[in-house]
Amino acid sequence: MTAEILCIGTELLLGHVVDTNSAYIGRKLAGIGINLYHKTTVGDNKSRAVAGLREALKRTDLVIVTGGLGPTEDDITREVVSEVFGVPLVRSDEALSHASSLLKRWGHQEQTSLIPLAQVPEGAGLIPNPRGTACGIIMDKMGKRVICLPGVPGEMQAMMELTVIPYLAGLAGKGEVIASKALRICGPGEAEIEDRIRHLLHGKSNPTIAPLVSLGEVMLRITAKASSTGEADAMIDQTEAELRKHLGYDIYGTEDDEIQHAVVRLLEERHMRCAVAESVTGGLISHKLTEVPGCSGVLGLAVTSYSNDAKIRILGVPDDKVQKHGAVSREIALAMARGVLSLSSADVAISTTGVAGPATDDHMHGVGLVYVALAWKNGITCGRFQFFGTRSEIKERAAKRALDMLRRHLLNHH
Amino acid sequence: MTAEILCIGTELLLGHVVDTNSAYIGRKLAGIGINLYHKTTVGDNKSRAVAGLREALKRTDLVIVTGGLGPTEDDITREVVSEVFGVPLVRSDEALSHASSLLKRWGHQEQTSLIPLAQVPEGAGLIPNPRGTACGIIMDKMGKRVICLPGVPGEMQAMMELTVIPYLAGLAGKGEVIASKALRICGPGEAEIEDRIRHLLHGKSNPTIAPLVSLGEVMLRITAKASSTGEADAMIDQTEAELRKHLGYDIYGTEDDEIQHAVVRLLEERHMRCAVAESVTGGLISHKLTEVPGCSGVLGLAVTSYSNDAKIRILGVPDDKVQKHGAVSREIALAMARGVLSLSSADVAISTTGVAGPATDDHMHGVGLVYVALAWKNGITCGRFQFFGTRSEIKERAAKRALDMLRRHLLNHH
Repeated sequence: MTAEILCIGTELLLGHVVDTNSAYIGRKLAGIGINLYHKTTVGDNKSRAVAGLREALKRTDLVIVTGGLGPTEDDITREVVSEVFGVPLVRSDEALSHASSLLKRWGHQEQTSLIPLAQVPEGAGLIPNPRGTACGIIMDKMGKRVICLPGVPGEMQAMMELTVIPYLAGLAGKGEVIASKALRICGPGEAEIEDRIRHLLHGKSNPTIAPLVSLGEVMLRITAKASSTGEADAMIDQTEAELRKHLGYDIYGTEDDEIQHAVVRLLEERHMRCAVAESVTGGLISHKLTEVPGCSGVLGLAVTSYSNDAKIRILGVPDDKVQKHGAVSREIALAMARGVLSLSSADVAISTTGVAGPATDDHMHGVGLVYVALAWKNGITCGRFQFFGTRSEIKERAAKRALDMLRRHLLNHH
Repeated sequence: MTAEILCIGTELLLGHVVDTNSAYIGRKLAGIGINLYHKTTVGDNKSRAVAGLREALKRTDLVIVTGGLGPTEDDITREVVSEVFGVPLVRSDEALSHASSLLKRWGHQEQTSLIPLAQVPEGAGLIPNPRGTACGIIMDKMGKRVICLPGVPGEMQAMMELTVIPYLAGLAGKGEVIASKALRICGPGEAEIEDRIRHLLHGKSNPTIAPLVSLGEVMLRITAKASSTGEADAMIDQTEAELRKHLGYDIYGTEDDEIQHAVVRLLEERHMRCAVAESVTGGLISHKLTEVPGCSGVLGLAVTSYSNDAKIRILGVPDDKVQKHGAVSREIALAMARGVLSLSSADVAISTTGVAGPATDDHMHGVGLVYVALAWKNGITCGRFQFFGTRSEIKERAAKRALDMLRRHLLNHH
């Protein structure tokens, strides 16, 4: 079974709104084994939307339309469907009473503008909308199905979950299911990873392994097609095990895990606390760690010592070292980590110092030069990195790399 | 002049990646008066991509293709263009030397896998890619133009800015231009703002004013159509002036400004320095401030005092106050702000304490309760807020509101 998506909305073409709906719908359809081969976006223009829907219905029997269901003149979806199926628009008391009772519940005055919401193509079914005034529409005629949902993500998602996915899952029956799982890696680059798993990357067509690079990390997505979710999951498990054989501890997590989740988990398991001293990352490491629920058990103190003065007075970095080596140096990174470790009485501390740009520092260090140091009771270590990108990207890469250094340290010291 | 976008990538259809590229390209095209009527997404499937490109070229003379330009077998864009234009792929030494010299600069080994990057359709021009190994491609033949860019947003954007937009602006000449400008507001909610500008919101069809709500702020987007950029800009200026009459200092910035840009600007103008003490926001305020280039001149110290111990020992919050009021209280917020002010010898300090959730705190305070305090040489103040959402959203809302409190303080104290 295959489907297409047609998004209607001038705001999407003008780029005022990023379309997150299609990705959501794509994931949901894949989960029930419906293939999505094509996605089209048109503006609030009736003739182009009619043409778009007609083209889609030539290629496939199921089209999901989002947007254009509101009460204004720009909302053309009802007219488009009625024209494509050659049926008139008729008044639906059910759609009208849904809209007016919802408005009443919200304490709003009823308005004449509700009338358009009650116009539906003759023969269409309604899809309940628990979060908004516009019902969805389903046309099922001559073997062609068109499902129309609002463009507001919260409304669309609720309707998909409650009605559309159960309905489509019933139709799709036992077709082919697509399941996927992502493994996440911080540290080695895409090229190095591909070298280590080349025989797995290219040997397979099901499951497939696709590398996806994002800021400072690589994600390997395993995607399996099978006749049931259980079977697809088993295929994924097997491929994951093979990948882990080659990549081992380089894999820090799966799916929506981020590097900070792995770090907090390890600290919790080891009953350890960490501290952070940030210069170039400017609070981002601390922000990332505190995104994780329960992080208050493992993080006591983080200091953003952006000025030399703060490094010297708060963290106890020796003044003469700053003079001699400059703030962006191995020596200062180490002194910052030691300083925040003793200040916080944590078990392990990480620090960063570097040049985020756009300008180079007083010592003419290049943009992207970053030192990351680790200090613990019995040792210290420091890494030197050259990152690329904008100020923001350099902060992000440095923060992730620092957290990954901490993660690898925790794996080795337990 | 009209254009279409064709996105190539199975990850977009499966919903593993949200397509932000089209929105960016849409905005850029609108800015130079090129209409975008249609956007298509297909997977990494050659026959569907060829069909998609052929359909698009039937409707319009200019198609921008994103994705599928990498070195792997899944990267089909070069082949698609060569098939649609009926020309062979030929080797481009320029494309090859770009890729290999970039890899050398990054310190990577050259690999055989670069060869596909050097295959270009005969007669195509190259578009320089300052951020990645894959050059873009432009085919210009028989009145039809196809521009191919990588799917990686940073690379695509750099190439649009440097090469594609200047090139297209030259072609587009003088059609109808769409220009827009966003005004940004933190603090009052959407309903309050709409009440204050209702007469402006509904009276106008050109320019239009569209409110757009995001986490902790409201954006008002003014969009004008005119025959020249100058004319559209003048219309926008006039509408902006009317909005500012009603919203005044509630507007903190425009376009891509974020609240931290407004704060750093005001601190710079007043030659003042700030300090930050964060509990519930966990480093996010510090992270936001350090996203702004030049922030080292106005921010010396930020402390994430997540534990009571850190609040007491580092910031000097009195132990008995923590015992008596609990860490989430007006008294502790004020003591944290005073503490970091004196520790840093800054001119003004902000602090946050609250419950980010998902669990309530030891004193049974509800999730989302946040105190924000400000301290300066001659005074202190504290606000109490109830925010909603996930842990991450509460941190974001609290950080923005704290920065907005600092902004309003700076506007009033100069």
